[in-house]
Amino acid sequence: MSDRSNNLSAVLYGAGDLRIEDRPVPVPAPGQVLVEIGAVGICGSDVHYYDHGRIGRYVVDSPMIVGHESAGTIVAVGENVSPDRIGQLVALEPGVPDRTCEQCLAGRYNLCPNVVFFATPPVDGSISRWVAIDQYFAHPAPDNLSVDEAAMAEPVSVGVWAAKKAEIRAGDRVLVTGAGPIGLFAAQVARAFGAKNITVTDVSVFRLAVARQLGFTAIAASDPLQSEFDVLLECSGAPSALSTGMLALAAAGRVVLVGMGVDTVSINVPLVQGKELTISGIFRYANTYPLALDLLASAAVTTELIVTHHFSLAETELALTLARRDPNALKAIVRPHS
Amino acid sequence: MSDRSNNLSAVLYGAGDLRIEDRPVPVPAPGQVLVEIGAVGICGSDVHYYDHGRIGRYVVDSPMIVGHESAGTIVAVGENVSPDRIGQLVALEPGVPDRTCEQCLAGRYNLCPNVVFFATPPVDGSISRWVAIDQYFAHPAPDNLSVDEAAMAEPVSVGVWAAKKAEIRAGDRVLVTGAGPIGLFAAQVARAFGAKNITVTDVSVFRLAVARQLGFTAIAASDPLQSEFDVLLECSGAPSALSTGMLALAAAGRVVLVGMGVDTVSINVPLVQGKELTISGIFRYANTYPLALDLLASAAVTTELIVTHHFSLAETELALTLARRDPNALKAIVRPHS
Amino acid sequence: MSDRSNNLSAVLYGAGDLRIEDRPVPVPAPGQVLVEIGAVGICGSDVHYYDHGRIGRYVVDSPMIVGHESAGTIVAVGENVSPDRIGQLVALEPGVPDRTCEQCLAGRYNLCPNVVFFATPPVDGSISRWVAIDQYFAHPAPDNLSVDEAAMAEPVSVGVWAAKKAEIRAGDRVLVTGAGPIGLFAAQVARAFGAKNITVTDVSVFRLAVARQLGFTAIAASDPLQSEFDVLLECSGAPSALSTGMLALAAAGRVVLVGMGVDTVSINVPLVQGKELTISGIFRYANTYPLALDLLASAAVTTELIVTHHFSLAETELALTLARRDPNALKAIVRPHS
Amino acid sequence: MSDRSNNLSAVLYGAGDLRIEDRPVPVPAPGQVLVEIGAVGICGSDVHYYDHGRIGRYVVDSPMIVGHESAGTIVAVGENVSPDRIGQLVALEPGVPDRTCEQCLAGRYNLCPNVVFFATPPVDGSISRWVAIDQYFAHPAPDNLSVDEAAMAEPVSVGVWAAKKAEIRAGDRVLVTGAGPIGLFAAQVARAFGAKNITVTDVSVFRLAVARQLGFTAIAASDPLQSEFDVLLECSGAPSALSTGMLALAAAGRVVLVGMGVDTVSINVPLVQGKELTISGIFRYANTYPLALDLLASAAVTTELIVTHHFSLAETELALTLARRDPNALKAIVRPHS
Repeated sequence: MSDRSNNLSAVLYGAGDLRIEDRPVPVPAPGQVLVEIGAVGICGSDVHYYDHGRIGRYVVDSPMIVGHESAGTIVAVGENVSPDRIGQLVALEPGVPDRTCEQCLAGRYNLCPNVVFFATPPVDGSISRWVAIDQYFAHPAPDNLSVDEAAMAEPVSVGVWAAKKAEIRAGDRVLVTGAGPIGLFAAQVARAFGAKNITVTDVSVFRLAVARQLGFTAIAASDPLQSEFDVLLECSGAPSALSTGMLALAAAGRVVLVGMGVDTVSINVPLVQGKELTISGIFRYANTYPLALDLLASAAVTTELIVTHHFSLAETELALTLARRDPNALKAIVRPHS
Repeated sequence: MSDRSNNLSAVLYGAGDLRIEDRPVPVPAPGQVLVEIGAVGICGSDVHYYDHGRIGRYVVDSPMIVGHESAGTIVAVGENVSPDRIGQLVALEPGVPDRTCEQCLAGRYNLCPNVVFFATPPVDGSISRWVAIDQYFAHPAPDNLSVDEAAMAEPVSVGVWAAKKAEIRAGDRVLVTGAGPIGLFAAQVARAFGAKNITVTDVSVFRLAVARQLGFTAIAASDPLQSEFDVLLECSGAPSALSTGMLALAAAGRVVLVGMGVDTVSINVPLVQGKELTISGIFRYANTYPLALDLLASAAVTTELIVTHHFSLAETELALTLARRDPNALKAIVRPHS
Repeated sequence: MSDRSNNLSAVLYGAGDLRIEDRPVPVPAPGQVLVEIGAVGICGSDVHYYDHGRIGRYVVDSPMIVGHESAGTIVAVGENVSPDRIGQLVALEPGVPDRTCEQCLAGRYNLCPNVVFFATPPVDGSISRWVAIDQYFAHPAPDNLSVDEAAMAEPVSVGVWAAKKAEIRAGDRVLVTGAGPIGLFAAQVARAFGAKNITVTDVSVFRLAVARQLGFTAIAASDPLQSEFDVLLECSGAPSALSTGMLALAAAGRVVLVGMGVDTVSINVPLVQGKELTISGIFRYANTYPLALDLLASAAVTTELIVTHHFSLAETELALTLARRDPNALKAIVRPHS
Repeated sequence: MSDRSNNLSAVLYGAGDLRIEDRPVPVPAPGQVLVEIGAVGICGSDVHYYDHGRIGRYVVDSPMIVGHESAGTIVAVGENVSPDRIGQLVALEPGVPDRTCEQCLAGRYNLCPNVVFFATPPVDGSISRWVAIDQYFAHPAPDNLSVDEAAMAEPVSVGVWAAKKAEIRAGDRVLVTGAGPIGLFAAQVARAFGAKNITVTDVSVFRLAVARQLGFTAIAASDPLQSEFDVLLECSGAPSALSTGMLALAAAGRVVLVGMGVDTVSINVPLVQGKELTISGIFRYANTYPLALDLLASAAVTTELIVTHHFSLAETELALTLARRDPNALKAIVRPHS
């Protein structure tokens, strides 16, 4: 176990202003564990905060540590936590809800209005050497997982939640628009749910090649879709992907809006009515980590080909700007202790 | 029982060209019943065909009898139908599916691609003195129903289907936008499903007054909504009603697009995602007639205040143009034998 | 507001040994409210503990306050609770879960293995003058409710949960076996959910008369059932009621085991398979209090005819032995301050 | 294509009296296809009719052709059927419903009271050289399937229907009691639905070995279950398997009664209530053939190790008595043209 003489962290001060700073090593409160962070994936939202200093109404108006796709090893526990957990590799579920509101009691804790979520202003994220978190949101990773894989339980959770919202069942034909990390994980989750004829579209030849290597049919976003689908997981955020994809849906088809990008999209009312389509959106996820970790452990979902780059803590800014420089980058991971 | 010396019918030849013509009295085929039609409600789609000669890709390019909200008395039966049914008051479910396709076998016969539906070109409708229909789509009306009420099982079915699609449960707070006949029936159905705080919006002071008389909270479409809802039944077809209504939905709210009017609507993606809303559309209905008739028989749904006008067969054109003349008209019924 | 010079409570020392004793007035912990208890209903489980000193593996081996169907007025609040709540009439949901386990996070907090539930050994119940409870489990009663009605939100919740588990929808035909308080509340809830042809069976002529007065068809348990049902809410605990009721179910019928009484029941496998019946059981309830209170406030569910007796705190033992003396007793309520 | 000079069939005259007889080659009616039967699996029900001359209220009181798990090649078509289907390998769904009743219209055609089902007295089965069947119940087999595999779409359909009834989702832990053909197919289907920790129990060492070869954990029925399950697919018909399996279920667990054998089983009421378990039964299947064929085509479900014996038409009686002679027999297939 490393010494805890510092807690260097990647702190965003505003658009384009990221600094590596020392922060106090947290002391785990009752019910919390202290995690030595081993890997943190860079998400589009981290990049967006870095580029713009805000996402919609969430504004970085005081310094905030970025990152929320994280995993590491428990090194200390607070009161009321079994010391047996020390040494455990865990995936950190980044949002801890209040557990008392109507949404929490109904099992929809992702919609809790009081959730405390990593790297959503003003809450600090997890590109830090040491992070304290509620014991129940530090999910034990199966033995065969690497810390990178455990960190990827976060974007895999998005795929799991999308597949659940779409009620994907064995035999469903699934279209995934957008072959970024989320789309590629979601497609793999759909396969694990028993989907067939899984087709992925994107504008990038590189990403389509990755989709193909992962075993999916891959089609350029501009090419016509020849077959019919039961489910559309829209992971690109592009309005044209949504409208094209919806036209390919069979009767009683389901759409889940996963990707973010534009504020409004147009939907074709006679199409939605005539085929009785259902459109829903997802906000983060609830109760997905155990399954996400299982899917990774059984290799039903792989991070290979998707985790394309690694950076040290000092290189966090490079990680945040990677996508500008390398169109073939998919997921970057920061290792806070390297 | 009237003699069957003629079968005068309301035949649409094209936009604005409606003629009362004699047609052969049908002979019920095996499995069919012959119904002496007592009442046919005028639907917005009938008016649209009269005004424009088409609805989207459905074009009146040969003469077509209009009307599909019908009820009457069985006067003869075909082979394989019990003669005991003669004399029965029945509500005619206007679409008979093929019963063999994937959609039919799955119980979604409303989505059958081969459905034969009254007054959808080139299929004749039911403003006729005598109509033959499949015995299973001539639903026996409970004893206490009038023929007008039985005919209203059609628009009530739309409300039932909307309520089922919205999965309305006891305690759900329901917003109905649009207080035409469909909206007013849907609101009553929602109440029968146990909904509470049912609120109806419209632009018409008259319609709002009717909504109030039926026991609902009624709010001008331009006024702000103060409370929160679990379900939005959009029955106006107005994009602004949809967008305003969606803003008033609680987490995990459901929207059903019932009204027709425009081809595309804009939806707010962060809203759909942030609250995990679900939007679906309905196309006609399936397996709703027995419940619709029950609700009418128990007075959980009333046609009073909604059926505002009656016309003889000869006055069918007046019925089709009523809405232009009388802004306070709601549902007109044609009596083919008067 | 009464003075808090004592906290007289009904304490069970073992089978047949109930004593009225003073206990310390609780100080509300952070997040808790202190309630001056106005009414506590006597449940069959209270009677069972009094008669036998145990229910299955739950044994009264140290003195325990009985009662869990309670309502009263908030008189003080702990830290982190709005003082505006003082003066509010509340219904006390008697089980507070741990909010951290898998069941809680999934929205099934009634199955929380660590729930702390009133009057389940060794947890004290609520026949006390003053009780402290988590603020979120003290549900505000609508203005028009009496304290008795608010207390009845507990057995009404059982009915709500049974109706939800049975997925009762408008138009479902419902059979309720057993016309005790639970059955009579469940039948009313089923009606509020839109059920029809609600039929109640019992062995008691008196209870059948009450069922009839509440508007239901009432049939002696020994008489044959002539009609078909979609749902059976088994509230009697009698194996014969279950087997008879199941025979009357239509295809795809649902059974919910609500009543307790015997450890095993026989089910007819070819019947369950041939009609594809579904049988489930309920354990308490989750997220039902707001709806239960609404149903009481709107008079969709009434406590009239069901609350038949009232007792002072000193008479608690009379309340617990009432059923032995008076076969026509239904629900007894103890008023701890009288 | 074979000549159609005879239609030798396996006709059961009563218990133990099976005769190979010539029957007229059917002429396909409008909407039907004529199938040259290539393979028919022997089901436990066929054996039961052979052994006892009846199953419950279904009595073989006139000669009946046995068999219903069949596949073959379309050799002729009736009116209203595309002649393009000639030459197609098809799996025959053995029950054709009336398509007009309430159950059919609701999508539950397996519960149709008027279904005509192969080898259910007095309806003839399919161990025949030529069989006519409704075109929509002759399901096209994917190209890579053998006729044996296509015939197995029937027992695989039972597994699909059980998995759907149990609502098996990715990550569910599934226990299958009984490792006969149905159990072994059901376990494979569960895996295709994303289940994990699939465990199969049986009393036969041989069957457990097969289960292990198929990749499942296999445990002797008499050994204790160490882990917890979300779903129990009871495929043995043994009451002890049901009671043992139910004890191993987690909160909110689901049981599906698939196996037949005894008329009544005892269920533990406090267990069903305390964990809110759900028990349902299945009767045949509906809308399962396309998925069953897909699962076979993708090798998600294999017939290897399960289809253990083949017989010619003349040997049908040997096929029906195989289980008595060979405890290690699983599925026998009769080839009517050999």
